[in-house]
Amino acid sequence: MVNPDFEAQLAEVARQVEQVLVGRLTDAPLEDEIVRPARLVAAMRHAALAGGKRLRPFLLVAAHRACGGNLADGALIAAAALECVHCYSLVHDDLPAMDDDDVRRGQPTVHKAYDEATAILAGDGLLTLAFDVMAGPDVHPDPAVGLRLVRGLARASGLGGMAGGQMLDLAAEGRHTADGQPLRLAPHAIRQLQAMKTGALLLFAVEAGAILAGASPARMKALADYGRALGIAFQIADDVLDVEADSATLGKAVGKDEAKGKATLVQVLGIEAARRELQAHVDEALASLADFGPEADPLRDAVTFTGARKR
Amino acid sequence: MVNPDFEAQLAEVARQVEQVLVGRLTDAPLEDEIVRPARLVAAMRHAALAGGKRLRPFLLVAAHRACGGNLADGALIAAAALECVHCYSLVHDDLPAMDDDDVRRGQPTVHKAYDEATAILAGDGLLTLAFDVMAGPDVHPDPAVGLRLVRGLARASGLGGMAGGQMLDLAAEGRHTADGQPLRLAPHAIRQLQAMKTGALLLFAVEAGAILAGASPARMKALADYGRALGIAFQIADDVLDVEADSATLGKAVGKDEAKGKATLVQVLGIEAARRELQAHVDEALASLADFGPEADPLRDAVTFTGARKR
Repeated sequence: MVNPDFEAQLAEVARQVEQVLVGRLTDAPLEDEIVRPARLVAAMRHAALAGGKRLRPFLLVAAHRACGGNLADGALIAAAALECVHCYSLVHDDLPAMDDDDVRRGQPTVHKAYDEATAILAGDGLLTLAFDVMAGPDVHPDPAVGLRLVRGLARASGLGGMAGGQMLDLAAEGRHTADGQPLRLAPHAIRQLQAMKTGALLLFAVEAGAILAGASPARMKALADYGRALGIAFQIADDVLDVEADSATLGKAVGKDEAKGKATLVQVLGIEAARRELQAHVDEALASLADFGPEADPLRDAVTFTGARKR
Repeated sequence: MVNPDFEAQLAEVARQVEQVLVGRLTDAPLEDEIVRPARLVAAMRHAALAGGKRLRPFLLVAAHRACGGNLADGALIAAAALECVHCYSLVHDDLPAMDDDDVRRGQPTVHKAYDEATAILAGDGLLTLAFDVMAGPDVHPDPAVGLRLVRGLARASGLGGMAGGQMLDLAAEGRHTADGQPLRLAPHAIRQLQAMKTGALLLFAVEAGAILAGASPARMKALADYGRALGIAFQIADDVLDVEADSATLGKAVGKDEAKGKATLVQVLGIEAARRELQAHVDEALASLADFGPEADPLRDAVTFTGARKR
């Protein structure tokens, strides 16, 4: 069952991370910067401060707490860096050449509110800012930890992670068999695509919290298992929502996966089997936390919420 | 006068940096990566391995040597990271929504050779890879130096640097006054735009070499003065070439700045005044190296070459 306090906890971390983001998305140039063009800052704010659950920041902060971390401010800053990467990916994925979406979180997408060139640059700016923030001295006093986080963020986001997953997703879209039927990827190919497109950054959120807290190898492994299972559950829930939710609740268009020939497990397995697989991964994520006490309850709540989410 | 051996030295650093880039742009996933989609790797290679002078890597390596640096391999790796950022910026700047260029270095641009979505992702992938490479343990044994380089790279590339400069450039393009004349930016506004769009990364190339070599504050300052002057000279030379070169020598279309209403000093000052300003900044860059011995000759050659370049 979903903890009735969970959404309030999620909202509180979201508020704190947004404070960090607001502070980083000012008009005032930092040291080594020249000026910050007002239009670009505004487009980046539109992308980064228009709401969202902030699930990745929550996971980072929750994993950090679960491992007894005491650098709460550092975790929030690392979480803000992660969220910059997530927001950049939404801006670029929404572009006309990609998923061509007009609405995101109930607001016009960045290329609709501004223009395409500004949206490309806003995404580029957010991705770059993520590394600036993650490499900051306020994340962790040991620079070796900072570098490890920078590299982990890059690996999770790049060609062997999130960007690569989007490439596979686009390649799978709209392909047809010789007799004109939509080509359906095999379940294992869909799982790999989704492990990259959404799983890698969710997994890294959990790992980053553990790294910041100086977690033991055993705890790191348990949390990585949790993060992987949660990532799969999250994506299946997303695909189920695309079929079942209404667009007002979701804040974006629904039924688009089918219309676009997106590769989802719901399509190839059917909705009931997809729901069972979703629950199996929620259970697996919970089981991987068996050796943790109540300090991991926010992580347990997060995956239960993910399995049951309506938006 | 341009050192007759300079082009051979430039080519040698280019060769070494390309070796590093080839090694980083393999199909094989690294630790923490899942798979590297072949199409995305191919598009990133198209962007990063299609030639180019590799001036930024040369500047980093030359500044490192000028400061007595002895981590030659680390400098080459940092230089490769920097070149990934430069190549990403070309891919995104060439997109139809930006400068809409079909040809780059005599080859089809990435969105022409592949498609727009792949080009956006290839740029994103190269930008992300840059930080992965720069945060690697093989750049410098002291992680504090690595973090400083990551942050410097982010600042030079982001909204207060290169990406911001492209935003200003797009904003200036195609604007007209009330009586229908093209709006011409004031020289100081053009200088600021160019200091961001091309100057910031050239400056950082020089600074990064000095940081890697553990240069003294006095040498850091001298090299920063050199880097700033070189950056201005480079951009004016580029604008002069756009007017005077032929497209076969340049490997891209010419006369485009005027056609697009791009803001350049050649336009507002005229070609003769722009040439004089170019020479003044070459002289300034050379003067800032007054306290360096022959170990800074490659930097001297680089700025002389920049002032005299034909492509």
